[in-house]
Amino acid sequence: MSALEAVAWDGTAVRYLDQRRLPHEIRYERARTAQEIADAIRSLAVRGAPCIGVFAAYGVALLRREIAGDADFLAAVQRVREARPTAVNLAWAVDRVLAAQDPLQEARAIHDEQIAVDAAIAANGLALVPKGARILTHCNTGPLATAGGGTAAGVIIAAQRGGKKPKAFVSETRPLLQGARLNYLELRDAGVDAILIVDGAAAVTMREQRVDLAIVGADRIARNGDTANKIGTYSLAIAAAHHGIPFYVAAPRSTFDLAIESGASIPIEERDPEEVAAFAGAQAAPAGAKAYNPAFDITPGHLVTAFITEYGILRPAFAESIPALEFRPASHVFAQTS
Amino acid sequence: MSALEAVAWDGTAVRYLDQRRLPHEIRYERARTAQEIADAIRSLAVRGAPCIGVFAAYGVALLRREIAGDADFLAAVQRVREARPTAVNLAWAVDRVLAAQDPLQEARAIHDEQIAVDAAIAANGLALVPKGARILTHCNTGPLATAGGGTAAGVIIAAQRGGKKPKAFVSETRPLLQGARLNYLELRDAGVDAILIVDGAAAVTMREQRVDLAIVGADRIARNGDTANKIGTYSLAIAAAHHGIPFYVAAPRSTFDLAIESGASIPIEERDPEEVAAFAGAQAAPAGAKAYNPAFDITPGHLVTAFITEYGILRPAFAESIPALEFRPASHVFAQTS
Repeated sequence: MSALEAVAWDGTAVRYLDQRRLPHEIRYERARTAQEIADAIRSLAVRGAPCIGVFAAYGVALLRREIAGDADFLAAVQRVREARPTAVNLAWAVDRVLAAQDPLQEARAIHDEQIAVDAAIAANGLALVPKGARILTHCNTGPLATAGGGTAAGVIIAAQRGGKKPKAFVSETRPLLQGARLNYLELRDAGVDAILIVDGAAAVTMREQRVDLAIVGADRIARNGDTANKIGTYSLAIAAAHHGIPFYVAAPRSTFDLAIESGASIPIEERDPEEVAAFAGAQAAPAGAKAYNPAFDITPGHLVTAFITEYGILRPAFAESIPALEFRPASHVFAQTS
Repeated sequence: MSALEAVAWDGTAVRYLDQRRLPHEIRYERARTAQEIADAIRSLAVRGAPCIGVFAAYGVALLRREIAGDADFLAAVQRVREARPTAVNLAWAVDRVLAAQDPLQEARAIHDEQIAVDAAIAANGLALVPKGARILTHCNTGPLATAGGGTAAGVIIAAQRGGKKPKAFVSETRPLLQGARLNYLELRDAGVDAILIVDGAAAVTMREQRVDLAIVGADRIARNGDTANKIGTYSLAIAAAHHGIPFYVAAPRSTFDLAIESGASIPIEERDPEEVAAFAGAQAAPAGAKAYNPAFDITPGHLVTAFITEYGILRPAFAESIPALEFRPASHVFAQTS
């Protein structure tokens, strides 16, 4: 685990890193009540769908221990469940702990599974990283996003720990800057030689800095390999293909949506234009500026060299290798989102 | 001319738009002394190489009128010339006015030439823009950058005035956000339906918003069409080629450097990592973050569909069409930089 520990059980409370203060302040807090747990989720102090799931699991286990009456306990659990209604991992983790004989043991199991899945992804990805590799990556895909070891950033950190001394080019990932704020911090914290770039510099970085490979995470992957991920991923994949650079997607089994044939079934969510008009709180564009602000984009499967999963490397033809996952269990049944 | 007038002679002073306050405040100032002229240039209140040239030309004409003694006049001119030692247009414009019989007439001639060159670029580019075209553009290439009508943004504004109702997707252009701050303002001010995007959204915008063409400016163009321009241009050109979208570069004769065969002779300037880590005082990345911050990139000529110049449209093979410019006079002998 990284020194930046997103979520931990400390014996009497759920400890969490307040991610709103990153990267400027590394401050851990302790949640002890349903109010404190719900507030941490609602305020985005704890974010990243798998991370929220692990945090809520410990939270419900804590509440079961602290609250005697069943009615009071269930009312408290409901407050936690409603903290972010759209975060599917949250409701799933809450229900799993509720149904368990030993809530704390179940919360630990959820956390351990996340760590094991991420570790398997990192171990499998390691084989694709040459010694001294120059790697381009995007958005936040490390321990802060998953409460495990991370996906794409997890592979890079594993390469560093394995003595491969990678150099990571970290795209800042406008508009919300998860690359600059979180991924850069996590990679540097793990000892990786991390170098920040603006998103528009990706292509020239590939050419001038002789990038060897790109690795990104994913929000949702269709049967044909079409990959929904943070806005900017599609541009990177096109630039990687143009330069003949392998483009890898690191994601757990749970991110593959085997119910959809292609990315055409994935709607593109548009978010507030204000996210584009401002930069880290500083207003850049004129007041009232119109913006097109899709939160993610879809990279066609034919631009992906391979998928790195906890079950190994999936290579083309994806229409065969991805559906074969159907016979693999998903420990976390919901997709990673960030 | 746009309602945003970068530089103008008002009879007793040189009027200028303080570009540091844009886009939040539109404030005109008047420079009356060598000190005020030099300060406006040094502080970046007046920026864009052609714009600085026009401003300094009027400035020297003003000083000639205000200062009786030759020694005092030349000392004052020297202060203006030294305000930004690397801005070649500045020294060129100062020398041209110094050598003229009628300094004010010469300053006006420099300004008029800039306006005429930009107008010819816009008129020639208009033929490439279909009615209702969805156009992607980058950085700041409007009247604020040239003190004329602009280059790439000038073509879009001409299309709007010609009743073609273009829709402009304006990339914000990190790290200094010239797209969000200046180009968006100029296009909207001219009545264009302008929509801001983050740089990473360019590829998905091309696909999902069915972009018809891309137009950018240039800092320097080699004989084979290799084009140095603001960082992010190369990524856009690759994405445009991937989607089969025409990619046009609008630039005056003076931007073509016929002394160099290819972009390999153009060094890539690296700037302060702090530009990437922050914007307008808002810090995004952790303190001490390393960054790779090339100020521009080089788009290979084979990714350019055509160049839009004051002498017409240059199409491939560029190794023939560009050197033919040798027989065309350049009214401004120095490249446009922004």
